[in-house]
Amino acid sequence: MSNEKALTAQAEDFSAWYNEVVLKAELADYSPVRGCMVIRPYGYRLWELMRDRLDQRFKETGHQNAYFPLFIPQSFLAREAEHIEGFAKEAAVVTHTRLKAVEGGGLIPDPDSKLEEPLIVRPTSETIIYEMFAKWVQSYRDLPLLYNQWANVVRWEMRTRLFLRTTEFLWQEGHTAHAGHDEAEEEALRMLGVYREFMEEYLAMPVVVGQKSDSEKFAGALRTYTCEAMMQDNRALQNGTSHNLGQNFAEQFELTFASESGAEEYAWNTSWGVSTRMVGGLVMTHGDDKGLVMPPRVAPIQVVIVPIYRKDDERELVLAKACEIVAALDGVRTHVDDRDKLTPGAKFFEWELKGVPFRIEVGPKDIAKGQVVLARRIPEGEERKQFLPEAEVLGSMRQRLDDYQAFLLERARQRRDENSYRGVESYDRFREIMDGDGGFVYAGWCGGAACEERVKDDTKATIRCLPFEEFRSETAPAKCLVCDADATAEAVWSKAY
Amino acid sequence: MSNEKALTAQAEDFSAWYNEVVLKAELADYSPVRGCMVIRPYGYRLWELMRDRLDQRFKETGHQNAYFPLFIPQSFLAREAEHIEGFAKEAAVVTHTRLKAVEGGGLIPDPDSKLEEPLIVRPTSETIIYEMFAKWVQSYRDLPLLYNQWANVVRWEMRTRLFLRTTEFLWQEGHTAHAGHDEAEEEALRMLGVYREFMEEYLAMPVVVGQKSDSEKFAGALRTYTCEAMMQDNRALQNGTSHNLGQNFAEQFELTFASESGAEEYAWNTSWGVSTRMVGGLVMTHGDDKGLVMPPRVAPIQVVIVPIYRKDDERELVLAKACEIVAALDGVRTHVDDRDKLTPGAKFFEWELKGVPFRIEVGPKDIAKGQVVLARRIPEGEERKQFLPEAEVLGSMRQRLDDYQAFLLERARQRRDENSYRGVESYDRFREIMDGDGGFVYAGWCGGAACEERVKDDTKATIRCLPFEEFRSETAPAKCLVCDADATAEAVWSKAY
Repeated sequence: MSNEKALTAQAEDFSAWYNEVVLKAELADYSPVRGCMVIRPYGYRLWELMRDRLDQRFKETGHQNAYFPLFIPQSFLAREAEHIEGFAKEAAVVTHTRLKAVEGGGLIPDPDSKLEEPLIVRPTSETIIYEMFAKWVQSYRDLPLLYNQWANVVRWEMRTRLFLRTTEFLWQEGHTAHAGHDEAEEEALRMLGVYREFMEEYLAMPVVVGQKSDSEKFAGALRTYTCEAMMQDNRALQNGTSHNLGQNFAEQFELTFASESGAEEYAWNTSWGVSTRMVGGLVMTHGDDKGLVMPPRVAPIQVVIVPIYRKDDERELVLAKACEIVAALDGVRTHVDDRDKLTPGAKFFEWELKGVPFRIEVGPKDIAKGQVVLARRIPEGEERKQFLPEAEVLGSMRQRLDDYQAFLLERARQRRDENSYRGVESYDRFREIMDGDGGFVYAGWCGGAACEERVKDDTKATIRCLPFEEFRSETAPAKCLVCDADATAEAVWSKAY
Repeated sequence: MSNEKALTAQAEDFSAWYNEVVLKAELADYSPVRGCMVIRPYGYRLWELMRDRLDQRFKETGHQNAYFPLFIPQSFLAREAEHIEGFAKEAAVVTHTRLKAVEGGGLIPDPDSKLEEPLIVRPTSETIIYEMFAKWVQSYRDLPLLYNQWANVVRWEMRTRLFLRTTEFLWQEGHTAHAGHDEAEEEALRMLGVYREFMEEYLAMPVVVGQKSDSEKFAGALRTYTCEAMMQDNRALQNGTSHNLGQNFAEQFELTFASESGAEEYAWNTSWGVSTRMVGGLVMTHGDDKGLVMPPRVAPIQVVIVPIYRKDDERELVLAKACEIVAALDGVRTHVDDRDKLTPGAKFFEWELKGVPFRIEVGPKDIAKGQVVLARRIPEGEERKQFLPEAEVLGSMRQRLDDYQAFLLERARQRRDENSYRGVESYDRFREIMDGDGGFVYAGWCGGAACEERVKDDTKATIRCLPFEEFRSETAPAKCLVCDADATAEAVWSKAY
């Protein structure tokens, strides 16, 4: 981190800025395997903090964790027609189970070890999980089954971006089975709510919540619900989805149960997932030209303490004070940067790049005055640094973290609202927006796939969702943005990751 | 769980008992993918509790979690000669990245998507991790790197057993890089110590700790250290290993650093791992003919409360009391079994099968008397149930859990010691033991691979380890058990999983 070269400015090249900040802040790195990334400790700690909170919420809502095989028999994937259609083109296929040395050196997959049926590295686990559910469920008394799995999945992507689209990624996939449609629908919406709450309250990331159009729904689902966030380049990021799968998979995997009346019925399934993609979303929601901006609740380090000293006896004094501060901030994730080889300036640069919410500087003079220097990653007012009594800073740190968390959410919400357009009725105006800075356009839609297709061809924008009521415009749009037929719904259109 | 059929007795068929108890207690289930298991919620919760404690200890000892790709290029695996020798025969090989429909229906791996270089699903991650370390390390100041990864790995096993040997399993793999041999050696031993402490204090599983012989060490390691536990059929289970990898991988992956003097040197690596295999070890260490026996510190449920009632008004009363008990046992993992369709007897049977440490029964008469019925999974004395004042039970529950934890460790230690043989000098006597009930035999070894081989051929026993000093016999064996040459070490021989 001795390299203090500034990042490419967001305004200059948002995409370059993103790659640079992910690499330089050491969230992740490229790996020698095409499309697969390495999640470095700072990025993984962030993911752990996200995971721990979500896991807690899943358990509070009655779910249990389990683990299902990495490999899915090819025939399983093929059973649900839309499902295989969705995943066949990006499947990592295991065909052999041994390597064999060849004459002259080198190795080949041993032809004698060829599998009768290829195995697919799971792109998602509906098929294998519902096969097992079918084995475990006999009667309505066994329902609902409320399962979750934390796992890695693989989708062979052609164009990859760190965190946003990688061949392998980490995620959780919830899978449930219910006795009726309404209960499954309720579950799908409940978990969407858990996602939304997490994104807003932990990631400080406001989301628009709604239903996917048929062309954008999950391969095999009845309905897909989504949380869509706006990045700082005004593109949408689909940040988490929840599906009511209806009885589609139950029918293919004979997941039936004896109802109270004794009749044999197919169960109703839901699935829902969020992934390491959220890390990319967090970076693009809050980061700035100095680097990452971490919301306190998921920040691996909430407060970094930088001791300032020149001589050895000063070093001892300020390090002792730094330790005192750490002890006083019990329950806050702190870190003392005691590296001797770096200047304070280099340290400031690094922790700003890594987005640590608060920095406390303390030197001999500060100690003498009973003060510390406090710097918030995004300052509250004009002053980048505040000189404050130590006791006041320590006593108020939790509140400051909470305030900063709320500030980041509000700031992101304002940005999103400023770049959202309502009442757009003219297709020309729509194209102007999409050809310009982009953003979320709320407009009428006739419900036809042809109009979706045309918008995509013309502008690359897609329907991100048909928003739930609280997100809809006060006056419902009357006409389709594209074909001018009567609108059947209001849609949010945007270019997306 | 309505099926109250007893398990096969351990004495009758230990192996059948093991499979039955794992399935019936719902720790795991077979999956449709050969050799891969499904870890069910009860088993996964147990694994989570193990993982959380280990993760805490890893962090306390300075390690950071990270995540590396699932896929390893075939050429990487091949670079370290012993390493590929060890893993080539059990490699899941990804050769294609798309499926394609064929005429007449069905799917095949799309020939156009064939990878130039096959990818191996990681059997372990030394190669890919040290490739990345080489990118990150420049100078001695970057060392040590202390990493850990929680992940799934795949080894294509021919004969599989739930938890003990499965094609896919979950584990952690620690990977570190150091500036010198001694530091690496210290790290390898430190983490072996963490494992030992965890196994004894959490799993109540006494282990013999020592070094592997060359024929049993990790493919590519300088030295392998191991924790060996004795199962109730007197076989050994290798429960966790820690390797000093020397500079073998560093040389192949050009993991070098500039030393303080400026010279370019190869780093020294260690790796260490434990896996879901430990779940199998726990089952076989403590379980009995009634089912699992869970050590409290990792028990998903530590105390189950079974309300006893006949009429509806009784139900309300006892359920209210059960909730009171749960509240009073704050911090204890409790569960109230309020299922209406099951008799108390059926519930007792199920929770004994699942190995819950304590059961509290409470009925209207108990409430009137201010008492509860307490049953410990393995009773302390003759009485299977104790009638005790409620307040006393609630006040003493933590202590009771601690005592039970200590009791299980001591019981397992006694069993192990009773089935350990020291001072065995005659090979005939050794064969008699191995042909009989088996056990751990401490005996001299000349250090020759031929003697190891012969023992294996004759008895299937192997050297489990060359034990560390505290485990060695008071009088060092003078002669090799097999060839009668001078002994170079004392070895622990046993049949093993």
